[in-house]
Amino acid sequence: MNRTLTHKGAATRQRIIEGAAAEVRERGIAATTLDDVRARTSTSKSQLFHYFPDGKDELLLAVARYEADRVLTDQQPQLGDLTSWPAWSAWRDRVVARYLGQGMDCPLSGLVAHLGRATPGAQAVVTELLRTWQAEISAGVRHMQTIGEVDPRLDADQAAAALLAGIQGGVVVMLATGRITHLEAALDVGIGNLRASRRLDPPVPSVGSSG
Amino acid sequence: MNRTLTHKGAATRQRIIEGAAAEVRERGIAATTLDDVRARTSTSKSQLFHYFPDGKDELLLAVARYEADRVLTDQQPQLGDLTSWPAWSAWRDRVVARYLGQGMDCPLSGLVAHLGRATPGAQAVVTELLRTWQAEISAGVRHMQTIGEVDPRLDADQAAAALLAGIQGGVVVMLATGRITHLEAALDVGIGNLRASRRLDPPVPSVGSSG
Repeated sequence: MNRTLTHKGAATRQRIIEGAAAEVRERGIAATTLDDVRARTSTSKSQLFHYFPDGKDELLLAVARYEADRVLTDQQPQLGDLTSWPAWSAWRDRVVARYLGQGMDCPLSGLVAHLGRATPGAQAVVTELLRTWQAEISAGVRHMQTIGEVDPRLDADQAAAALLAGIQGGVVVMLATGRITHLEAALDVGIGNLRASRRLDPPVPSVGSSG
Repeated sequence: MNRTLTHKGAATRQRIIEGAAAEVRERGIAATTLDDVRARTSTSKSQLFHYFPDGKDELLLAVARYEADRVLTDQQPQLGDLTSWPAWSAWRDRVVARYLGQGMDCPLSGLVAHLGRATPGAQAVVTELLRTWQAEISAGVRHMQTIGEVDPRLDADQAAAALLAGIQGGVVVMLATGRITHLEAALDVGIGNLRASRRLDPPVPSVGSSG
C-alpha cells in the first residue's frame, strides 16, 4: 500500500479508485463488484490485483480516503479562506449546499460502516479528515482574532471543535430525518457566536446575579 | 403493534424487549437470536410470536425505541430541570459521563443502521428522540430567558437545535475516534455562549467596522 508507484501506475490506481467511487455512489457498496469496477475502468484482473492485492475491502478503504478528500475539496476555496464575515457566510452556504445536494446518501459514512468503524483503516481515514477540517476552521478563527473580529481570549481550537461537532451532528440529523435545519442552526449559531464574541471585549460590566 | 395489551401482556412484552436489549448490548445485533432472547426471558416461541409476529426485526425496532427512551432517561432529572447555570452544568456532566460510560458502542446507532436508517420505523424512532430531546433543551433556554439569564431576543428553538447538533456530532466523533473532546467542546461552547448572550442585552454600542 505504501510502495512507490510510477507516475503511470499512480494514475491507473487513481482511475480504479474513482471508478469504484462512482460505482459505490450509483449502486451502493453491497452491489458493487470488482468485475463492475474492472469493466468501468477498463482494467484487467491482474491490474486490479496488483494495486489492491487484498481485494474489495482494500479498494473500498482507498475509496473512503478519496471520499474523505472530496468532503474537504467540496468546501474549497471557501474553507481555506475564512478571512472576513462574508467569507464565513460563503463557506456556510457552501457546506449547506453540499449536503443538500448529497441528500440522504453519505458515501463516506456508508463506507466507514461497511469497513467497520473501529477498524484501524477506517478510523484513520475519519480521524485525518476531522483533524484537517478542524485545523482549517481554527485557522479561520485565529485569522479573525488577528484582525480584531473575534474575542482574542477565545480558545480557537475549542471553538473550531465545537463548530465541527455541530456540522457532524447536523449532517447526522439530516441523514436520519431528511431535514437540513440542524446543520443550518449549528452553522448559524456557531458563526453568530464568533461574531458576537467581539462585542464582549473589552468586558462589559455585568449587571445583576450571574446565576 | 398498536393493539391494546392487558397489563400482564404489556409486562411480558416489556420483559422480552429488555431481555433482547441486554442480549444486543452483550453480544451485538448479528449474534443475537430469538432463541437467546427466549432463553433469557423465559418465554415460549408462541409468546414471542404473539408479541412480535413479524420476527426479529420487529423486536429490534422495539429495542431501538427502548434504547432511544434510555438516551433521555439517562439524562434525567437534569435534562428536565435546566433552571440555573449550575443545573446546566450538572446536565453537561451527566451527558459526558453517559457517553464516556457507553464507550465506542452505541446500541441505538447500531440498531438504526441494522434496521436501515431510511426505513419508516427506524426514522420515526430517531425523529421522535431528537424532537423530545430538543424540546427539553428549548424549555431550558426559555426558562433562562424568563429569569433574565439568557438574551430574550435569542431564538430558543434554534439555539436548542444547534446545541443538540453539537451533542450528536460530539458523539459521532467519539464513536469514530474514541475521543470525548468534541462532545465536551460542543457542550461547553454552546452553554458558554448562552451565558454570554445575557451580556449583550441591552445592546452594547459596536466599535469599528463589523466586517
